[in-house]
Amino acid sequence: MLRGFAQAEFEGRTHRAQEMMQAAGLDALLLTTEADVRYFTGYLTRFWESPSRPWFLVVPSEGKPIAVIPSIGAALMSQTWIDDIRTWRAPDVADDGVSLLTDTLNACATHRIGTPMGHESHLRMPLANWTRVQAGLHGAVGGDAGIVARLRSVKSTAEIAKIGHACDIAGRAFARVPEIAGQGVPLSQVFRDFQRLCLEEGADWVPYLAGASAKGGYSDVISPASDAPLAQGDVLMLDTGLVWDGYFCDYDRNFSVGAPSTETKEAYSRLIDAADAAAEIARVGTTAAELFHAMDGIVTGGAGGSDAGRLGHGLGMQLTEGLSLIPDDHTVLEEGMVITLEPGIEVEAGKILVHEEDTVITDGAPRFLSRRAGHDMVQL
Amino acid sequence: MLRGFAQAEFEGRTHRAQEMMQAAGLDALLLTTEADVRYFTGYLTRFWESPSRPWFLVVPSEGKPIAVIPSIGAALMSQTWIDDIRTWRAPDVADDGVSLLTDTLNACATHRIGTPMGHESHLRMPLANWTRVQAGLHGAVGGDAGIVARLRSVKSTAEIAKIGHACDIAGRAFARVPEIAGQGVPLSQVFRDFQRLCLEEGADWVPYLAGASAKGGYSDVISPASDAPLAQGDVLMLDTGLVWDGYFCDYDRNFSVGAPSTETKEAYSRLIDAADAAAEIARVGTTAAELFHAMDGIVTGGAGGSDAGRLGHGLGMQLTEGLSLIPDDHTVLEEGMVITLEPGIEVEAGKILVHEEDTVITDGAPRFLSRRAGHDMVQL
Repeated sequence: MLRGFAQAEFEGRTHRAQEMMQAAGLDALLLTTEADVRYFTGYLTRFWESPSRPWFLVVPSEGKPIAVIPSIGAALMSQTWIDDIRTWRAPDVADDGVSLLTDTLNACATHRIGTPMGHESHLRMPLANWTRVQAGLHGAVGGDAGIVARLRSVKSTAEIAKIGHACDIAGRAFARVPEIAGQGVPLSQVFRDFQRLCLEEGADWVPYLAGASAKGGYSDVISPASDAPLAQGDVLMLDTGLVWDGYFCDYDRNFSVGAPSTETKEAYSRLIDAADAAAEIARVGTTAAELFHAMDGIVTGGAGGSDAGRLGHGLGMQLTEGLSLIPDDHTVLEEGMVITLEPGIEVEAGKILVHEEDTVITDGAPRFLSRRAGHDMVQL
Repeated sequence: MLRGFAQAEFEGRTHRAQEMMQAAGLDALLLTTEADVRYFTGYLTRFWESPSRPWFLVVPSEGKPIAVIPSIGAALMSQTWIDDIRTWRAPDVADDGVSLLTDTLNACATHRIGTPMGHESHLRMPLANWTRVQAGLHGAVGGDAGIVARLRSVKSTAEIAKIGHACDIAGRAFARVPEIAGQGVPLSQVFRDFQRLCLEEGADWVPYLAGASAKGGYSDVISPASDAPLAQGDVLMLDTGLVWDGYFCDYDRNFSVGAPSTETKEAYSRLIDAADAAAEIARVGTTAAELFHAMDGIVTGGAGGSDAGRLGHGLGMQLTEGLSLIPDDHTVLEEGMVITLEPGIEVEAGKILVHEEDTVITDGAPRFLSRRAGHDMVQL
């Protein structure tokens, strides 16, 4: 499994963006987040964990993107396909890239600049500096017409292979959970050990792990792990987003500590039925909302949703990205979209179970990247 | 080592913020990032890894902060000291918290709202929604007068204990590097195994690991690990930001694969001298710039800096936060600030070494949270 991408991949992404920019009347795109910058450059580093330095990429209407970045990143950026790398010594109290970015944008765009402003985007730079940049621009700044999100939502074969590789790593780690979890083991220890298993099985790093363990079902799936020991009758859920070469998997597995109760067993089986029902119709032309309803009909009888908000989402360079499986998202599935099917079900008031699989949309049946779980929980 | 904080800690933070807000003429603060929201609430979850949902906290001029958050977070937020938790079912295509946030801000502030807009801040919500919020506000929105950054820069005893605990964990992992690294081991394997050691020694998770291995010194400290095997004469550097209970350590260690060359050995020793020189003067009243010059005088003879941009920084809820050790940062050190001393030195053109320690500013000598490295690299 090779790391990185052929240069043609970045050329294609850039070319498609430029076609869409032309149609939208945009002279340039301004990108500021890790995933957006990496999408067009291949620039991969964990250094974004530090919030101290802003990073900018300008996609002009033709030619390669231009990097406007802190000098500490020049060496690594020069290993990508980007040629035009403009740097300043950040952090700079007086001018933290503001004039360099303004000059670069002005050289590329006199009419209209787009930057992602829509759902799940953010501008990764201080607002005060953004105001200064805007004041110095010749052109106007607006949204990017959804161009970057649209491009990123359909994955290439090479991207899908990386997500699949991440899923395989997680699958091997999940298969080893009986080694680390069982009655009496503190949940916090299970969390630590599960991350270790992910690394042992090949993860580059493990940015996300959530989960819970409670009798018959859990009440919350985003809390940090407590030191409470697993107990007979608990359902242990582990939900991981591990990364391989910059691409995430995101799926979970449920385990029963001892034999599950009849209620829990039945609820879990219905949860798998729900994912199966979505898989039945998940293909080119189906909408996100239709997937939601296929699952919601089974897990709630059609109540229309839960506090979790959605029953799945897009997946790729970020743990979650793009579409949401909710009643109001009418995004039409396209070949190459990678999504999670993530139904949740209430076992009884205050006790839920959540199941999640990762799958690729094709013209026919979806291709699962996670190895599908059966109707019975693995028993610890 | 207890997790979490006493409620008095959050009350104190909020009270101090409100005093500063009054002095700055602010009716309310709006916070949107993980660290800022957590600082005032204790809300700790890895769920922020998902960019899909915005989260808001409003600090009014008196009383407790108000959480305006996706319903999926209500259960966990209700375990904090926050009482007023307003939720919407996110993601919502039509109104993703915009009207709920606008109403909340209008009820708290009719005059002036502040949100962090300065150095290393960003607004974690889509710009299009931010425009809609602003249009609906009765009051004006501006910067937060640096209030949140100023508060966060001085750590409480409990916060320092958590950072120290993270440093201790990393120290035990660094001590075990000889178990996992040596001639012939691929750097990527060392990265994976070092993260495993951090977990085994007690890290909750390992958000950051950087490093390099190259003959006599390295050229870049932010690249992902290659599969190249460590070779005789390499210097292996590992720089980790691991987290315990929401607080980071951030320091590195250098190891020599076999005996170092005389040049490398001397450069490394000078690097330690530089950190020592900074430690000599690092105390209440010294400025960030003075620490820079103390180190720069030794590592470059006073050239004024390198492309890395700085020789240390603040540390706490984020890998890097607050002040920078650069010539233009004249922040005066206060008791309770936690900073890194991070000098870099050129061994020869294109080959550098970087060393880093974590320390607390006191009225006397600084108290090191990382166990200070000696003048000789550990040999593998």
